[in-house]
Amino acid sequence: MTRWLDDDEQRIWRNFLAMTQLVNERLDRQLQRDAGMPHTYYMILVALSEADGRAMRMTDLARRAQSSQSRLSHAVARLEERGWVRRTRCADDRRGNTAVLTDDGFAALAAAAHGHVEEVRQVLFDALTPEQLKALDDISTAVRGQTVGGSS
Amino acid sequence: MTRWLDDDEQRIWRNFLAMTQLVNERLDRQLQRDAGMPHTYYMILVALSEADGRAMRMTDLARRAQSSQSRLSHAVARLEERGWVRRTRCADDRRGNTAVLTDDGFAALAAAAHGHVEEVRQVLFDALTPEQLKALDDISTAVRGQTVGGSS
Repeated sequence: MTRWLDDDEQRIWRNFLAMTQLVNERLDRQLQRDAGMPHTYYMILVALSEADGRAMRMTDLARRAQSSQSRLSHAVARLEERGWVRRTRCADDRRGNTAVLTDDGFAALAAAAHGHVEEVRQVLFDALTPEQLKALDDISTAVRGQTVGGSS
Repeated sequence: MTRWLDDDEQRIWRNFLAMTQLVNERLDRQLQRDAGMPHTYYMILVALSEADGRAMRMTDLARRAQSSQSRLSHAVARLEERGWVRRTRCADDRRGNTAVLTDDGFAALAAAAHGHVEEVRQVLFDALTPEQLKALDDISTAVRGQTVGGSS
């Protein structure tokens, strides 16, 4: 009963996978080289920088960063060692720890942003036409809508 | 001189990132749950299963799986512990170790394939129209062409 992929579908799938892997590798390589952090850390700092008081509960941060709790805890522990994030526990909040972006963390993010944005431009926006960007936006929305309602 | 993203570009970029993360998470979750392996291991087994003699030099395997040498070495060591892959060194080949898929590894891949392909269908192919799949294929090719010629 397995709905195997035909040759064309197989090719499209592998092309898509290779594309996403290359994008991730380029983002990681640039950020590691120029800012000493992987893309996952960058996304955590961005999420905190945009939150009220630059603080988020760990559960909300995991959802926002689309990360498992265990992976997020590990990453935040590393960020805390660097002095970029600190964790607090409010006495009146039984829902768990809160992560707060420090001034040093905000400065690290600001310093990293320039090179990262340039890499994002080069890897995606410079490669695609306005029509392709519109199509990619619609495709992303369709897959996410499907996924949200899927087996997860 | 930084070419910052405008609001629309920012939204497209985040939509794309969230989509690729969800796809990766769903593939990983299904394979971990039903086959006890992450998607990265599955891709290594697929690459070996399609190679002559089900064997590849580690350097070629890293390129094929778009993985760094260190990450691939780690993954292959885990696969070797499971008896799915073994590593050999040919006396006449100074270019390094070769990874070989074992019969047990091939059986593990075959058993995992059904559920994986169904997940791929649900997460991507069922969500998109034929026109969107064609557009995604062209987009993937454009980004990969750009990336291959980029700063890497």
